[in-house]
Amino acid sequence: MNSSSSNPPSANPRHDSRFLKALRREPVDRTPIWLMRQAGRYLPEYRATRAKAGDFLTLAGTPELACEVTLQPIRRYGFDASILFSDILILPHEMGLGLHFVAGEGPKFHTPIRDLKQIHALPRPDPNEATGYVMDAVRMIRAELPEDTPLIGFAGSPWTVATYMIEGGSSKDFARAKRLLLQHPDDAERLIAHLADSTADYLVAQVEAGADALMVFDSWGGVLSPALFRRFSLAGMRRIVERVRAACPDTPIVLFAKGCGAHLEALADTGCQGLGVDWTTSLGEARRRVGDRVAIQGNLDPTVLLTRPDVIEAETKRVLADFGDGPGHIFNLGHGITPEVDPDHVDVLVDTVRRESAKSAT
Amino acid sequence: MNSSSSNPPSANPRHDSRFLKALRREPVDRTPIWLMRQAGRYLPEYRATRAKAGDFLTLAGTPELACEVTLQPIRRYGFDASILFSDILILPHEMGLGLHFVAGEGPKFHTPIRDLKQIHALPRPDPNEATGYVMDAVRMIRAELPEDTPLIGFAGSPWTVATYMIEGGSSKDFARAKRLLLQHPDDAERLIAHLADSTADYLVAQVEAGADALMVFDSWGGVLSPALFRRFSLAGMRRIVERVRAACPDTPIVLFAKGCGAHLEALADTGCQGLGVDWTTSLGEARRRVGDRVAIQGNLDPTVLLTRPDVIEAETKRVLADFGDGPGHIFNLGHGITPEVDPDHVDVLVDTVRRESAKSAT
Repeated sequence: MNSSSSNPPSANPRHDSRFLKALRREPVDRTPIWLMRQAGRYLPEYRATRAKAGDFLTLAGTPELACEVTLQPIRRYGFDASILFSDILILPHEMGLGLHFVAGEGPKFHTPIRDLKQIHALPRPDPNEATGYVMDAVRMIRAELPEDTPLIGFAGSPWTVATYMIEGGSSKDFARAKRLLLQHPDDAERLIAHLADSTADYLVAQVEAGADALMVFDSWGGVLSPALFRRFSLAGMRRIVERVRAACPDTPIVLFAKGCGAHLEALADTGCQGLGVDWTTSLGEARRRVGDRVAIQGNLDPTVLLTRPDVIEAETKRVLADFGDGPGHIFNLGHGITPEVDPDHVDVLVDTVRRESAKSAT
Repeated sequence: MNSSSSNPPSANPRHDSRFLKALRREPVDRTPIWLMRQAGRYLPEYRATRAKAGDFLTLAGTPELACEVTLQPIRRYGFDASILFSDILILPHEMGLGLHFVAGEGPKFHTPIRDLKQIHALPRPDPNEATGYVMDAVRMIRAELPEDTPLIGFAGSPWTVATYMIEGGSSKDFARAKRLLLQHPDDAERLIAHLADSTADYLVAQVEAGADALMVFDSWGGVLSPALFRRFSLAGMRRIVERVRAACPDTPIVLFAKGCGAHLEALADTGCQGLGVDWTTSLGEARRRVGDRVAIQGNLDPTVLLTRPDVIEAETKRVLADFGDGPGHIFNLGHGITPEVDPDHVDVLVDTVRRESAKSAT
């Protein structure tokens, strides 16, 4: 059952939250704000829970601990949206690739895709079985969150997840992954389609467990030529949007494709409700190009949070002014917040957004 | 004396070379081709000379050796342009920062900029004194090159060079460099202006020594917000173009700003004659946006050279078709060629460009 469509929208206490209103491009009293990776290492309370868990997979895999770190930034800053604490590589991990973390090197897979036969043998996991702990975390977070705070579920884009599955971890030039696209495009399309279908199952299950909105992260679409981006990265996201919207027509989806400012129109054409924009694209330009179709989320350079309070305030005002008056803006960083940020600097950011956007509320 | 403007252009035997004609957007019999980092580790003859030199700074700092590796790819492939073998960090090295290379970590400076006072104390080197070995290399290469093969001189953009000077080497998030721009914008502007003036001196000296064209590499403009890009990265390149054009009005300048597809119009407005474009921007789109003002150089993804000959041929044809018929295209990669490339694959690329572009020559 899809909890979102089984109840009339007005029965959802989050329906009139700033975040969901902004996603519908309805007027709000002030610009909603949340931060990518808001449950993260910059928070001492996160570091304490992380230490208790021992390792990242235990933290993400234990619903009580994932729930605790998800709620920490909500308690501290009262953000306008909460986002499930998890990782985009949980899904391929549960497809049998064996996720682990090597200090200083980031995520790794024990069994990367090194043979085309592996693509054809990938399972399509039942999300409530293979990733039941994620759905338990969603239910627990939903029960613990303030009733009017929306919860965002998420997954990685098929292309981005595929890069890790093929490279076996992070990469500098994505040579193996690009070789698959160029030398075996039909197998690559099959992998993207399979990941899209599995990801759609996974996201629909998150909605059924209580997620109010969804996000798809395409961290590595920006390393592709326009032709490869359209055929693989964009096509995978479009397939997810179509499948999830068919199952959950009331649940908005935000696509965040880093370094893909050139593709905003194509991304908006997928049928998504919001676009995350990194700091290298002007919000004003993004709005002129696609703002009549989708909400826009972004886009302060996270590095600004490493400067002084007066600079943070000035740069935050610049982002608000770049978007301008009118509905459809969700304030966020242009990428995840970094571990070195002083938590007090986030207060400066949040206060500035609340104060300044209330002045020109529509 | 400026050798380029002291002779009538027609007296220069390179004046009617494909490369210089394409830069003037004049018709050519086929599309000229050269590759960024064409003198590099993918060539066994380069590796042999590099081993003889012992280390990179000796290779770049010994005119005979720099000349030898510059000529190697011309001998092997007959490229339509040659580019001086050197490094964008030679100039700050000779400003006293102490360049060295740490295995696995790339370039480092012994004395990075860690204090605003250092900015104000930077020398403006006499290019024929401090970097006399570069000018000797240019003269030697010019004497050894086929008379009709143009020689490209180059430097780093002020912002890109500044990132290394401030970070002390490569960086992931450029936090120190961005902090300077955000917290001390007047000092940052002064640093950019000083680097632009010193770089202009350095490039004019290369022209006087025999360079037929110039390139400015902005490797890291793409990490900046549009506002910071305009104020620092773009402004530094514009200042270079203005100063070099005033001294050498007949020497074309190509700007290559990686990840800056959003800024093509602004880059074309600097007064440069050509724009390098990486593989994430469509050449057809680049041409529609700025092709009436500048030549366009690019843009095959270097990773394509790691695939099969048939794929290299197909993707090369795609790049040619993306630009389309008509003058003003210089074929290149979208970034430097990588060490893992099979030299025979470069033959496939070169042959394809020659054969296919001759069919639709204008």
